[in-house]
Amino acid sequence: MAQPATTPFQAAADSLDPTDWNAVRQMGHRMLDDMVDMLAGLREAPVWQPMPADKRQALRSGDVPTAPGDLGAVYQDFQTLVQPYGSGNIHPRFVGWVQGGGNPVGMLAELLTAATNPNLGGRDHAPIEVERQVIRWAAQMLGFPQDASGVLVTGTSMANLIAVLVARTRALGTAVRQEGLQGQPLVAYTSVEAHNCVARAMDMAGLGSQALRLIGLDAQHRMDMDVLQATIARDRAAGLQPFMVIGSAGTVDTGAVDDLVAISALTRAQGLWFHVDAAFGALAMLSPAQRHLVAGLSEADSVAFDFHKWAQVPYDAGCILVRDAALHASTFATQPAYLQRSARGLAGNHPWPTDFGPDLSRGFRALKVWMTLKTYGTDKLGQVVAGNCALAQQLAQRVRADASLELLAPVTLNVVCFRVLADVPDLDAFNADVVADVQESGVAVPSTTRVDGKMAIRVAFVNHRTREEDLDLLLGAIRQAADHRT
Amino acid sequence: MAQPATTPFQAAADSLDPTDWNAVRQMGHRMLDDMVDMLAGLREAPVWQPMPADKRQALRSGDVPTAPGDLGAVYQDFQTLVQPYGSGNIHPRFVGWVQGGGNPVGMLAELLTAATNPNLGGRDHAPIEVERQVIRWAAQMLGFPQDASGVLVTGTSMANLIAVLVARTRALGTAVRQEGLQGQPLVAYTSVEAHNCVARAMDMAGLGSQALRLIGLDAQHRMDMDVLQATIARDRAAGLQPFMVIGSAGTVDTGAVDDLVAISALTRAQGLWFHVDAAFGALAMLSPAQRHLVAGLSEADSVAFDFHKWAQVPYDAGCILVRDAALHASTFATQPAYLQRSARGLAGNHPWPTDFGPDLSRGFRALKVWMTLKTYGTDKLGQVVAGNCALAQQLAQRVRADASLELLAPVTLNVVCFRVLADVPDLDAFNADVVADVQESGVAVPSTTRVDGKMAIRVAFVNHRTREEDLDLLLGAIRQAADHRT
Ligand SMILES: Cc1ncc(COP(=O)(O)O)c(C=O)c1O
Ligand SMILES: Cc1ncc(COP(=O)(O)O)c(C=O)c1O
Repeated sequence: MAQPATTPFQAAADSLDPTDWNAVRQMGHRMLDDMVDMLAGLREAPVWQPMPADKRQALRSGDVPTAPGDLGAVYQDFQTLVQPYGSGNIHPRFVGWVQGGGNPVGMLAELLTAATNPNLGGRDHAPIEVERQVIRWAAQMLGFPQDASGVLVTGTSMANLIAVLVARTRALGTAVRQEGLQGQPLVAYTSVEAHNCVARAMDMAGLGSQALRLIGLDAQHRMDMDVLQATIARDRAAGLQPFMVIGSAGTVDTGAVDDLVAISALTRAQGLWFHVDAAFGALAMLSPAQRHLVAGLSEADSVAFDFHKWAQVPYDAGCILVRDAALHASTFATQPAYLQRSARGLAGNHPWPTDFGPDLSRGFRALKVWMTLKTYGTDKLGQVVAGNCALAQQLAQRVRADASLELLAPVTLNVVCFRVLADVPDLDAFNADVVADVQESGVAVPSTTRVDGKMAIRVAFVNHRTREEDLDLLLGAIRQAADHRT
Repeated sequence: MAQPATTPFQAAADSLDPTDWNAVRQMGHRMLDDMVDMLAGLREAPVWQPMPADKRQALRSGDVPTAPGDLGAVYQDFQTLVQPYGSGNIHPRFVGWVQGGGNPVGMLAELLTAATNPNLGGRDHAPIEVERQVIRWAAQMLGFPQDASGVLVTGTSMANLIAVLVARTRALGTAVRQEGLQGQPLVAYTSVEAHNCVARAMDMAGLGSQALRLIGLDAQHRMDMDVLQATIARDRAAGLQPFMVIGSAGTVDTGAVDDLVAISALTRAQGLWFHVDAAFGALAMLSPAQRHLVAGLSEADSVAFDFHKWAQVPYDAGCILVRDAALHASTFATQPAYLQRSARGLAGNHPWPTDFGPDLSRGFRALKVWMTLKTYGTDKLGQVVAGNCALAQQLAQRVRADASLELLAPVTLNVVCFRVLADVPDLDAFNADVVADVQESGVAVPSTTRVDGKMAIRVAFVNHRTREEDLDLLLGAIRQAADHRT
């Protein structure tokens, strides 16, 4: 059948707009149909496949284009070089890392965002109001007061950095912003299982990662509260200045949740900042069956979490919430002349998002969050959380029931760490190989981590598309790879 | 005429995907057509209009939705509450701040990005290769070596923070990451006209904004090299530790470009890190008529710039380039177990973007840059730069030719600062009012800043859509507002 005639994209002489908008229209409609086809057929496609060397090479060579290229050819490059070799996290059988799957409403929102292209640093326009509404909604979701401050950021790594900086301001006063650190002996506390980005935040803030005490775990992989208390006392006795405790709501390795109620009581009693890294665990607030697991979250001074993980909003979309909005603003706000606020005109509408974080120019992350929340509602997102946690319990049960498998950590939320037992010289290398084999098979993507020194197969259920049949396929692929290697 | 029947969006029971993909298809096609219509009609629409109180209120009230909403109704909310009240930077007569206009190819790229939804923190997938190619292309554009490292970030604010952290590592060694700052007297240098985010970077990094010496200007609003040299000498004599000079290639207030060749020679002679904030000025490298203005840029140790400004890529898309890739990685890389690299499988392909910046999860910013560069080519982007600079010269000429206007700063690139002279008691308030009047008229959006203490009307040409006729309309609106007030 003859293809309908298409209008080639050609930029106007005096702008980047096309000479004929039909070119954009046609290309857009085609891309949209292709993307919908891709999503609709996801379950049948491989989760991941290694890039063939020649295609990788094609992306590794070639100078920066000086002359225009045909948009159709550019799209074809995308289709042949990029699309088939994605990271796989949209796929129902991607269970390797704590990554969200995206969602079709968020996808459409990004089209609107890119077309309207606002800069969310500040000023008086509706996108700013949308972000504020999203922040108020986030506060409601987490049981924070409605006047808490917050801002959308790239991810929890950045949100944790913001929390450390706000806590630093509380400990040292705003003078630290001008005067810098003078070797004040600030120390913070978190568990050994906390995400590494907390240590990176301490490092970037100039406090140093050694000033982050990594507290050992109890049997449930939670921060050991006795050890925490003793360590704080010892640090105080040594003349150090404890200023912050970072609890984890869902650790990256095992999904453990610290005893946030106990941390809240301790930090209040000791006058310390209570921050929670709830990168994915925050979403447990939306599921009646899981909510109790994150009790105490609502009492924190600040919470970092991601919409791009369990809330399934397309990348990237992290969030920081801070109870004390004034302290938050005092950590970031400045007003040079070109950012002067005015009572009217476009420079009104104070305070601006840039007053609450390190970015000035900022994309309209808020729209994809706003449309996802409005279209699905939080109950539905809670069901995704509950479904993922149920799958984790099911997998744990099947591991326990199988003598050739060993569960390596308790299952609290959605992460299951286990290994295949086999009569091989190096069980760690064996399990790592099994995981790589399964990844390369395209059937499923689990990952590895270390639990108590042992190489573990790590399965994190985060994708809203994952069903019980995917669990069967995953376990089948693991068994097959293991058999093949023994 | 009867509307064609549409499929309402309804989420499946066990995922966030629709029960019928046609619902997504139809809604997407409609949105795409609407967005293309909007862009095609941009020139006739108001640049900006204040939000009516009731619409603002609609976004300020309402609890987080728990139940699902109709996607059509959600889109209608977008159309009535959000789209008409954007910040205006896509419009040809938005000349208020240094903001890019976006472009239709970038818009389509964002659809592909959101659909495929990869996480660019790391691992072995094609999107990582695309970002690496973009970084290599950026290095070519700026005359950097091909083995320079870099990473895409939210914007130049973040890129400047990364530069300060890398320079901090060079000055103090990687031990600073663990040990933190111990009151070492590091000092950095930039001009009084440097963007405020440089001071914020010093603040966040724990060095303190006072450790950033703000050097005065020469007649061309460039950092005064004699004062710089004298200040460094004085600081050394006082036992301080100079470590970094930040040149500006295009200041936000006047578009001035520091003497980068001189700064390069000085920093080399003195063993200091040479960073350039080239947020928009970097793009001058693509225009033969302007390239000489940023001579010396290619010699920097690091450059921060934005694709979302003069390169017209949709928000957000900043970039940091660092000449010494090993030093760059040594400032950010860490390898906890769950981020362990492997020789094969999805966890290969070292080093990862997360090794070069503060983010772990990261969106696919690279695709919109890649597709924009491949479709338009850098020559075309250079023509946009040249066109904007020509408009700035034209405006300057018209200001000089008009006795009722006063030029307040030399015009180097694309920024023109001037004021209306009038027989009024407070010329500053008068000019600020004129700017707000023009903004509220919807005809054009200039902004204000202060130049040598005087309130200035600031016109920054950054939008690829701006033509000479827009300049006429802008000046007409300014005149009308001024007449109306005198
Ligand atoms: C517990 C935890 N904290 C922090 C992070 C980092 O978040 P992001 O990747 O959004 O920066 C993760 C990522 O998996 C995480 O699981
Ligand atoms: C010279 C300069 N530096 C830095 C910035 C901040 O860049 P961004 O808004 O991308 O963070 C700007 C923004 O206008 C700028 O003009």
